[in-house]
Amino acid sequence: MEYKIGEKAQFSKTISESDVYLFAGITGDLNPIHINCLEAQKSFAGKRIAHGALVSGLISNVIGMKMPGPGTVYMEQDSKFVRPVFIGDTVRAEVELAEVLNGEKGILKLGTRVYNQDNDMVLDGFAVVKVMDNINKDQ
Amino acid sequence: MEYKIGEKAQFSKTISESDVYLFAGITGDLNPIHINCLEAQKSFAGKRIAHGALVSGLISNVIGMKMPGPGTVYMEQDSKFVRPVFIGDTVRAEVELAEVLNGEKGILKLGTRVYNQDNDMVLDGFAVVKVMDNINKDQ
Amino acid sequence: MEYKIGEKAQFSKTISESDVYLFAGITGDLNPIHINCLEAQKSFAGKRIAHGALVSGLISNVIGMKMPGPGTVYMEQDSKFVRPVFIGDTVRAEVELAEVLNGEKGILKLGTRVYNQDNDMVLDGFAVVKVMDNINKDQ
Amino acid sequence: MEYKIGEKAQFSKTISESDVYLFAGITGDLNPIHINCLEAQKSFAGKRIAHGALVSGLISNVIGMKMPGPGTVYMEQDSKFVRPVFIGDTVRAEVELAEVLNGEKGILKLGTRVYNQDNDMVLDGFAVVKVMDNINKDQ
Repeated sequence: MEYKIGEKAQFSKTISESDVYLFAGITGDLNPIHINCLEAQKSFAGKRIAHGALVSGLISNVIGMKMPGPGTVYMEQDSKFVRPVFIGDTVRAEVELAEVLNGEKGILKLGTRVYNQDNDMVLDGFAVVKVMDNINKDQ
Repeated sequence: MEYKIGEKAQFSKTISESDVYLFAGITGDLNPIHINCLEAQKSFAGKRIAHGALVSGLISNVIGMKMPGPGTVYMEQDSKFVRPVFIGDTVRAEVELAEVLNGEKGILKLGTRVYNQDNDMVLDGFAVVKVMDNINKDQ
Repeated sequence: MEYKIGEKAQFSKTISESDVYLFAGITGDLNPIHINCLEAQKSFAGKRIAHGALVSGLISNVIGMKMPGPGTVYMEQDSKFVRPVFIGDTVRAEVELAEVLNGEKGILKLGTRVYNQDNDMVLDGFAVVKVMDNINKDQ
Repeated sequence: MEYKIGEKAQFSKTISESDVYLFAGITGDLNPIHINCLEAQKSFAGKRIAHGALVSGLISNVIGMKMPGPGTVYMEQDSKFVRPVFIGDTVRAEVELAEVLNGEKGILKLGTRVYNQDNDMVLDGFAVVKVMDNINKDQ
């Protein structure tokens, strides 16, 4: 495996109401700002927003599916939630190879950012991951 | 609202196969280590593991449902994934008020940890959150 | 069991966004034409469409639930996708007994078609199925 | 875009109970052979099996995500169900470029096969697909 600093990969998705509701069900985070139209109207956001951890999960997709890809596991994820993501937003998670922390052990630092359809950054952060070479990349 | 440093709240759940599969579907992270028994066997973990972002989502539950509770929004979550979480594990997410960063604006720093059924820490980290007082806490 | 050539059965459903998103998650087919509003706009369809295999699955419903009914198993399904099915469309899957291929073994050929709310055909094809008489039909 | 006859792509997944149950819910195919242990025991299969259309959906994944990839739409899928797929089986869907039917219009014929963990073929068939070049492949 070769590591090229600055290399990028991405994944885009329109966030559906069912994404937010299933995520609420899996985690048990039924915070009204996510699943209650009336309460969400009173908030700074004005309407229901996606869970930050859901948006952060799209980064997990890019890391696990594309770069570094299948078999990679998380050591750390730091996510700053810069803007809210609304139901119906089309967001793009982008991962960039920032630094090889330990080439022998396959430990990498990645820049992780998510943008909405207006190209406004909604999440900024970084990940530390470990690449396992014994997993078949062609899955 | 009063903030007591050291105050804690928690949420526990047995992670089901359907939790992991739905999470894979929502995020698109179908990394074989999560959804492929044969490939997961070859990994360091030896069997399918839950997504780190799913485990991190349980913290979002405690923050959004209990402490500080409904209406709280994430500003930052940092998660270090210390041990794998397997399908069938019963994990407990624990949140502790660490520091009031800005009492007027309701900005708090929280310690965030998740433990498995053997009381081994699986996730260690912190969150920065903002409490919105105009949301009804009694949801 | 008696087979009447030309006999029909049907099932109708409005295809929801959650149907399409869950189907994407189960199969891992997150083709942007299904789950990305922005990319789908650029396509021939102009908006997000349901997976062909999902629409085809409604035929499986009619075969497995109504005619021939519980206990029937697929030997073959051929589906031609004639028009796109959009999120929000109400489609009707129709199955017609076309031919008894082997009466003793319960092997039948079925015409399989799906129509949208404008009565435009969206799927045309056929199935070959095997009826197992040891399964209780009254399920 | 270049087409190489014989080129292959694949996707593997362990079929979970939740996959089968969600698929049953989406399509309404609650045939007892899929969701009733007692009735399934009496069948030729001996236990609950996955829906053929679900297994066929994994082919849709390979076509929509890998080869030809994002933006491809189905024109036809023919699937022969050769062996049952059980809950817990790890299956591999494989797509092979068989023939360029119309290079100008991007219409391709693909061989489509699915194998289980014992490398036994469970599904054999073909697809006809249309590639749309105006969809961003890097999703």
